[in-house]
Amino acid sequence: QSSVQLYGIVDAYVGSTKDTIKSATAESQTVVGSGGLKSNRWGMKGSEDLGGGLKAGFKLEQRFKSDTGEQDGVAFKGESSINLSGNFGAVALGRMGTPYDDLRGKTNPIADTNISPVGDTIKNAKADYTDKTDNTVAYVSPTFNGFSGAVAVSFGENKTNVADATSHSSLKLQYANGPLLVGYGFQKEESQLTAGTPAAATGQTEDKTFNLLAASYDFGVAKLVGGYQTLEIESKGVKQGDNDSLYFGVQAPVAKNINVFFGYAGSEYDAVTGTDYKATGFTLAANYVLSKRTDAYVGYKQIKKENDTTGADMGKVKTLAVGVRHTF
Amino acid sequence: QSSVQLYGIVDAYVGSTKDTIKSATAESQTVVGSGGLKSNRWGMKGSEDLGGGLKAGFKLEQRFKSDTGEQDGVAFKGESSINLSGNFGAVALGRMGTPYDDLRGKTNPIADTNISPVGDTIKNAKADYTDKTDNTVAYVSPTFNGFSGAVAVSFGENKTNVADATSHSSLKLQYANGPLLVGYGFQKEESQLTAGTPAAATGQTEDKTFNLLAASYDFGVAKLVGGYQTLEIESKGVKQGDNDSLYFGVQAPVAKNINVFFGYAGSEYDAVTGTDYKATGFTLAANYVLSKRTDAYVGYKQIKKENDTTGADMGKVKTLAVGVRHTF
Amino acid sequence: QSSVQLYGIVDAYVGSTKDTIKSATAESQTVVGSGGLKSNRWGMKGSEDLGGGLKAGFKLEQRFKSDTGEQDGVAFKGESSINLSGNFGAVALGRMGTPYDDLRGKTNPIADTNISPVGDTIKNAKADYTDKTDNTVAYVSPTFNGFSGAVAVSFGENKTNVADATSHSSLKLQYANGPLLVGYGFQKEESQLTAGTPAAATGQTEDKTFNLLAASYDFGVAKLVGGYQTLEIESKGVKQGDNDSLYFGVQAPVAKNINVFFGYAGSEYDAVTGTDYKATGFTLAANYVLSKRTDAYVGYKQIKKENDTTGADMGKVKTLAVGVRHTF
Repeated sequence: QSSVQLYGIVDAYVGSTKDTIKSATAESQTVVGSGGLKSNRWGMKGSEDLGGGLKAGFKLEQRFKSDTGEQDGVAFKGESSINLSGNFGAVALGRMGTPYDDLRGKTNPIADTNISPVGDTIKNAKADYTDKTDNTVAYVSPTFNGFSGAVAVSFGENKTNVADATSHSSLKLQYANGPLLVGYGFQKEESQLTAGTPAAATGQTEDKTFNLLAASYDFGVAKLVGGYQTLEIESKGVKQGDNDSLYFGVQAPVAKNINVFFGYAGSEYDAVTGTDYKATGFTLAANYVLSKRTDAYVGYKQIKKENDTTGADMGKVKTLAVGVRHTF
Repeated sequence: QSSVQLYGIVDAYVGSTKDTIKSATAESQTVVGSGGLKSNRWGMKGSEDLGGGLKAGFKLEQRFKSDTGEQDGVAFKGESSINLSGNFGAVALGRMGTPYDDLRGKTNPIADTNISPVGDTIKNAKADYTDKTDNTVAYVSPTFNGFSGAVAVSFGENKTNVADATSHSSLKLQYANGPLLVGYGFQKEESQLTAGTPAAATGQTEDKTFNLLAASYDFGVAKLVGGYQTLEIESKGVKQGDNDSLYFGVQAPVAKNINVFFGYAGSEYDAVTGTDYKATGFTLAANYVLSKRTDAYVGYKQIKKENDTTGADMGKVKTLAVGVRHTF
Repeated sequence: QSSVQLYGIVDAYVGSTKDTIKSATAESQTVVGSGGLKSNRWGMKGSEDLGGGLKAGFKLEQRFKSDTGEQDGVAFKGESSINLSGNFGAVALGRMGTPYDDLRGKTNPIADTNISPVGDTIKNAKADYTDKTDNTVAYVSPTFNGFSGAVAVSFGENKTNVADATSHSSLKLQYANGPLLVGYGFQKEESQLTAGTPAAATGQTEDKTFNLLAASYDFGVAKLVGGYQTLEIESKGVKQGDNDSLYFGVQAPVAKNINVFFGYAGSEYDAVTGTDYKATGFTLAANYVLSKRTDAYVGYKQIKKENDTTGADMGKVKTLAVGVRHTF
């Protein structure tokens, strides 16, 4: 019995991309891209039975770009955690996805893929949540009649004699029963205040509060997913604006080994003072299942951004991808 | 059946080195060096049978320096690729060695080792080809009666509204039959032009065109390898110079578990305007095979550079290495 | 038979830390920390039997921070080495721990853990030895009637026409017999002199000479460890000061699966000219053995620094940790 499992995903595509949001004069570019359906990763994980229902586990996951071979972020950006689990649930320490992120992932159109329009659309309107946090203590409850919950706290570890530490806290409550999943998520990202003024050195000068209601239902002929997210941004206790977002999608097995995916997201930022923004996006994709571990895919994603005060067009991001994904 | 194989090479040596090309006052230095016979690497690779003759495969290979433990280049500098192969050949995406590099490697004196004089000699004359490229689509044909070919294109992904993207394209044609290998290689490395002017921001302001004829023959008592490479350098469509290079080598099993290697390279750069350069180099080495996976070796490499316009000596690089190589 | 073993340690804790040595106004900080009992690592290692009593081996070990997923230092900071061993002992090349470090580790209170007070206390007084060195050739002798030795030389590889290279040399002599270990260690870290002046560019402008007498004895009901280290610092051949240090500790299995650890260290720096410093530190810890590969622990470490010329208090470092360690 091995005490460690080496695993990963390699996903690359040929395609074209054009981003007139970033630069109005951008041209369509032929590219080899990384992670069309899923972010590239490799990692080590393990689980040990300690007896009496107790288990110890760990996960170390590196992200990389398959098109250039570059590491993406820190060594174990994907996860760096150790946990103890038993009848009481599980306690984990380290760097990991937040409970909020878990619910967003489970209800993300296009099967939690990178080609999903959700995150990009929301970020183009204003801001989305932090998906993974350092210095985290997390608790995941066991499941009671389909109900379960999780909570996590991340310490900024930057407290001074004149300022509190930053912190992230996140929770998730969900009900899962057969084809149905319904969940509520909450995440608060707090800045560091020095006598009422955000401490600029910490890089976070705004407080963000996220609320999410999300659900999925598998009808067999198709699986529907969707969610509604609110974000309130404050600075020094003064509200800056609201960023509300809606997303939904459908995944359908249309023929043997062929699945079709559609996803949509819309997000609006209403500023208390200043410019409002609006972004909408959609993705249409299909994959051909070559084996349990390998599939080929084609996908098209488009995000559109507008100045929601003036109604002016602020550009589009278009990505077309034909690729292969392999899991090991 | 495991879906991933962990593999690598650790190679280190004790030796001395003196480089009066880089610095005229350089002294002989006692060193522990990295990769005398082969670059240090570790990687993950796998192959999955998809049925019907179709296979999926991947390779992620990191390079490192065994003497200091440092990573060499990006995370998966050695290779970061995914491929599908079948009767039609193989298609690969990602970062990988070019087809041109494959032919150079197969005909490199001293068994494709780092102690080979070829690359260093050519670079000291003027310039050698780029061995691995990002954002690459490659096709490798099946073999017909000993004949096979490969072609690859790498996208610079830096097209703007006033300049084309840079690109690398590479191809190889080879005939391999028993002890004989003959091949032709071509590689073109294109700069980014902005209205006829290379875009300096991309780092490549010259176009390079490489042609290679190379062969190897295994006589049993000795294996001979060699090649002739031409390089034409242009800038904004105007020829800058020619860099022609010749290399050859012999590998002979002289006693049980003992092989002797000799390699030579000469390279001349003829500038249209300005100074000409000339470099010559040779390597003499021997290894003692301790097992299929481990050998000990001794090698000596010397490169000499001259100003080929004035005939002035521009220094020498000398490296002596006694080391061990282990494959896992 | 696999030719490579993937292994590692993941260790994280929740705790609090306060460091008034670094900043007099520091506050107590709630943290998730990395490596309370042992530094986080993953690596690849292997050993191959070459016949005739000869073996080849390698080890590549990366260090990382479990709380943030960041790589700690170079890719293979922990070790990057290849070795041949046989009746003659073992010869190794690469980056590795020095023989001196081996003896310090074997006699380190708190079972060679990070929560041990020794290194931090000595560094707070003045300076401790370099534990791992690049560009190293090492020889470890076989054991004769309990006696063994090891020696290593590390080349700075920075010799110029006006200055010698830096270098580290280290040796260890030990006697181990049943419950007893007694050892002597020596390490010399030489700066680079340019005509009698340290070459600042190399980063090391002082010569350090370390001597260590250390021992451990396992009484069964408790294991005692301890050592006495002297350090003489010179610059351009002129003595700068002495840094003498004493450390000891006890490890006792107090109940089934429960061990208690105590360690103490004291270090004084007597400068020839200028300020003297003094540091003392202790650790109290206990672990609960969940399995051969996993334990939970609690520990408290405190280091105190004084100006030993004036007697003035220079602050304290306090760390409390409750954590889990898992080995794979």
